[in-house]
Amino acid sequence: MPAGEIQFVYSAKEMPKFATEPRLVCGFPGSGYVGKLAIDHLIQELHATHLADIYSSSFPPQVMIRTDGTADLMKNSIFSWQGKETSLLLLTGDSQPSDPDSEYALAEHILDFGAQFGAKQVFTLAAYITGVFVDKPRVFGTATDASLVGNFASHGVSLMDSGSITGMNGLVIGIAKLRGIKGTCLLGETSGYVVDAKASKAVLETLLSIIGINVDMSNLEKRAKDTEMLIQTIEQQMAAGRGGLAQEGQQQQQPQKPRNTGYIS
Amino acid sequence: MPAGEIQFVYSAKEMPKFATEPRLVCGFPGSGYVGKLAIDHLIQELHATHLADIYSSSFPPQVMIRTDGTADLMKNSIFSWQGKETSLLLLTGDSQPSDPDSEYALAEHILDFGAQFGAKQVFTLAAYITGVFVDKPRVFGTATDASLVGNFASHGVSLMDSGSITGMNGLVIGIAKLRGIKGTCLLGETSGYVVDAKASKAVLETLLSIIGINVDMSNLEKRAKDTEMLIQTIEQQMAAGRGGLAQEGQQQQQPQKPRNTGYIS
Amino acid sequence: MPAGEIQFVYSAKEMPKFATEPRLVCGFPGSGYVGKLAIDHLIQELHATHLADIYSSSFPPQVMIRTDGTADLMKNSIFSWQGKETSLLLLTGDSQPSDPDSEYALAEHILDFGAQFGAKQVFTLAAYITGVFVDKPRVFGTATDASLVGNFASHGVSLMDSGSITGMNGLVIGIAKLRGIKGTCLLGETSGYVVDAKASKAVLETLLSIIGINVDMSNLEKRAKDTEMLIQTIEQQMAAGRGGLAQEGQQQQQPQKPRNTGYIS
Amino acid sequence: MPAGEIQFVYSAKEMPKFATEPRLVCGFPGSGYVGKLAIDHLIQELHATHLADIYSSSFPPQVMIRTDGTADLMKNSIFSWQGKETSLLLLTGDSQPSDPDSEYALAEHILDFGAQFGAKQVFTLAAYITGVFVDKPRVFGTATDASLVGNFASHGVSLMDSGSITGMNGLVIGIAKLRGIKGTCLLGETSGYVVDAKASKAVLETLLSIIGINVDMSNLEKRAKDTEMLIQTIEQQMAAGRGGLAQEGQQQQQPQKPRNTGYIS
Repeated sequence: MPAGEIQFVYSAKEMPKFATEPRLVCGFPGSGYVGKLAIDHLIQELHATHLADIYSSSFPPQVMIRTDGTADLMKNSIFSWQGKETSLLLLTGDSQPSDPDSEYALAEHILDFGAQFGAKQVFTLAAYITGVFVDKPRVFGTATDASLVGNFASHGVSLMDSGSITGMNGLVIGIAKLRGIKGTCLLGETSGYVVDAKASKAVLETLLSIIGINVDMSNLEKRAKDTEMLIQTIEQQMAAGRGGLAQEGQQQQQPQKPRNTGYIS
Repeated sequence: MPAGEIQFVYSAKEMPKFATEPRLVCGFPGSGYVGKLAIDHLIQELHATHLADIYSSSFPPQVMIRTDGTADLMKNSIFSWQGKETSLLLLTGDSQPSDPDSEYALAEHILDFGAQFGAKQVFTLAAYITGVFVDKPRVFGTATDASLVGNFASHGVSLMDSGSITGMNGLVIGIAKLRGIKGTCLLGETSGYVVDAKASKAVLETLLSIIGINVDMSNLEKRAKDTEMLIQTIEQQMAAGRGGLAQEGQQQQQPQKPRNTGYIS
Repeated sequence: MPAGEIQFVYSAKEMPKFATEPRLVCGFPGSGYVGKLAIDHLIQELHATHLADIYSSSFPPQVMIRTDGTADLMKNSIFSWQGKETSLLLLTGDSQPSDPDSEYALAEHILDFGAQFGAKQVFTLAAYITGVFVDKPRVFGTATDASLVGNFASHGVSLMDSGSITGMNGLVIGIAKLRGIKGTCLLGETSGYVVDAKASKAVLETLLSIIGINVDMSNLEKRAKDTEMLIQTIEQQMAAGRGGLAQEGQQQQQPQKPRNTGYIS
Repeated sequence: MPAGEIQFVYSAKEMPKFATEPRLVCGFPGSGYVGKLAIDHLIQELHATHLADIYSSSFPPQVMIRTDGTADLMKNSIFSWQGKETSLLLLTGDSQPSDPDSEYALAEHILDFGAQFGAKQVFTLAAYITGVFVDKPRVFGTATDASLVGNFASHGVSLMDSGSITGMNGLVIGIAKLRGIKGTCLLGETSGYVVDAKASKAVLETLLSIIGINVDMSNLEKRAKDTEMLIQTIEQQMAAGRGGLAQEGQQQQQPQKPRNTGYIS
């Protein structure tokens, strides 16, 4: 992999034939791992098929050590799933590129990959950072077309009307638009302080209602419970006046419409 | 758009035929949005024709969310206008490139675009940061040729005789000079603390007097009034000794020739 | 050497013919110079043959001044050695690349070089930073294959089961894995505060036991003694409550399993 | 000038024919402007001929404004001079490249330019930062060959035996060595706190004694006097206990061999 290059390593003997145009759904690692946890859960529950790993010299120059003691380069991975009426390409990964230029390049490669299968619609799952802990995380959204935006209300998605979405979650739908592909970004409300499976569950449920499939959520619910307990612990510490988050803790007494902090990933 | 590439997406069915060599006028986003506000006003009042959008992997990797909930990649845009005796190419944008190398590349592409139409003169509208609020912002200038500099006085432009102009506003005229194209940078005096439509109005009026066209300024004047009120509020807070700008506030009591802070964009 | 290029300058008239597939062993400069000291000792004791110097525009832009007053560009160097049953390619260097993208590129070039000679196994020697001084530094390890990991215990290597290895020491084995080449990273336990020949000796002894050759360690032991004395001095200062390391000094009274600080190089 | 490119713009109608192999002498802007002031003085006194300007997208993206109000891109410039027995190529500039990779590239281009004229020897003039004000700045040196180093003593040059030289001053001689061209770096002792014409004069006198030509130094001496007066003012302030440099001021009472601070440019 020469400098600057992006390399696809295919594991599947042959590429899948989809019954219908697949939807490409991306869960990049980011704040609270909201998107990545959701996609990893989906891959696990659907027993999706591993198609390819993506390596890039723009990923952080390191190996990740597995629990069995073996090490692997940082990578992204794409899986496929064929349902009765729905076809999916699912992307998860260890990292986003470390420089802006390479984020554009990776987004192009991912959309090229989807184009091979005639993917006409792409979703990115992201985090909506508020700095505030909430019981029921909302799901925010933006999209490339007014028609998609029009359907948000019916799925309980709060429409964003300002701000920006940075990183791969924004670029993938932005470049999709230039290619005439429909893009939607769904963002789970999260404090930004913890790995937030609660937000992941909210954003995944919204995705599933939009694409119309059902998945057992129990494993993700279990993780969401853990998140809830972690948050309660933090809140108790904050109530006790300890920890640097006291201020946000108080904000909870008077819940407020979170402002777009411009820190979305 | 491969990494490092700059992509022009043309909207006009055919490129305009200009009656006269067009002048290229650039309003990049920068301190106080002085240049961008001026060009956006000009585009609006002249009902200029959209020619092309410019996308680049050197723009910040994000999408901007519009008020209707749809999202777009960061871009620059070029418009054209044909007057009785004047032809204009107008450039506005969401962003400047995020790395120096790409700023040079974008400046070359913009000048290449202008060259297609025989543009022999280019203007950039910028901000002259003083850290001081003033009632009547001055307009400063520098240019590629002594002949252009010689005309500044007759248009009320204060000549700069030291310092530097960083970013696209400097590069576009600097590279223009290497190509034998005349370049002028006009800079509106601004504190640097607020979006400054007052400075935009001043720099736009100067541009219009140089290129000899008239434009209804009422909308920009309205915005300038808002700026004025915002500044007054800040000054009152400063007078009350609050706010981090108190020091500059005092400087206003004894107005002084602003020094080139070297922070011009 | 154009920007971005990596240049090999060969000193040997002809490339060596190895009796057996050589093992490539890399000692990049890093924390405590653990890896570099070990390889430099090995090169010296084996009277290894200098094959090539590697120059790169990604190395820090500077010359190093030698004790004789002459100056040289930063470089990496590769040596070869042919033993009775073992063949070695040994890499040492002044520097690692200064940007991630170039670290990937250099790792590829080094593995290409090894591939010329049919190298099927690569080792990197690194530092395991604990922030704690210890009498008997342990050696930690990770590898590309479970089979290699399985042999660690028999050589007294503590298995890592989490974290990451950043920089060339990680990339070389990570990219080797993509090429089907076996990679092992051995890390000598070190405080991270001093050039640590003790850790170098530990990691080198482990390497030698794995590849099955013997080398006179007296010179490295001498340096290790110096390290020990330096550490004792620092500890005395810490005991006396002076120096910024007091806290770590106290940790020594209650030795603890060093956590993977994630700062490994 | 596409991104990453280096562009030579030639002013001379024809390239000079040198009576003898020219020496290339570089005075890049750096700490105290020691090297640049020396070369600018040499160009002025020798009435050297301007050959070419060098532009690069790796120079800071800005224009410099001249006293007449006109603006120019950042650049380096090369001049030539033919003496009775000595030929010179003289390089001065506004800036060094803004990233390491481009420093390597520019050094290669400069050496390519010199190679056109058969230049076999290159000098760089730099600053040796000590953080201490001295009456008689020493001149330090390093070179690519022991033979050059051997001649330092006879010209009063203090030999460096450790440390490194960063930036263009180091790269130009380091890459020259790879090309079989002799390189010498002369460094004028300076505090690093002021533009130091005293250090420039010292390093230029040393250069002239090595290459065996005479130049009227009165203008540079005048500037050196100014430096001296500036330093005296600073010292008086330091003696009065004001200014952040008091500590260095005291060091002067007990003058000491300045250690290589590793900060040389």
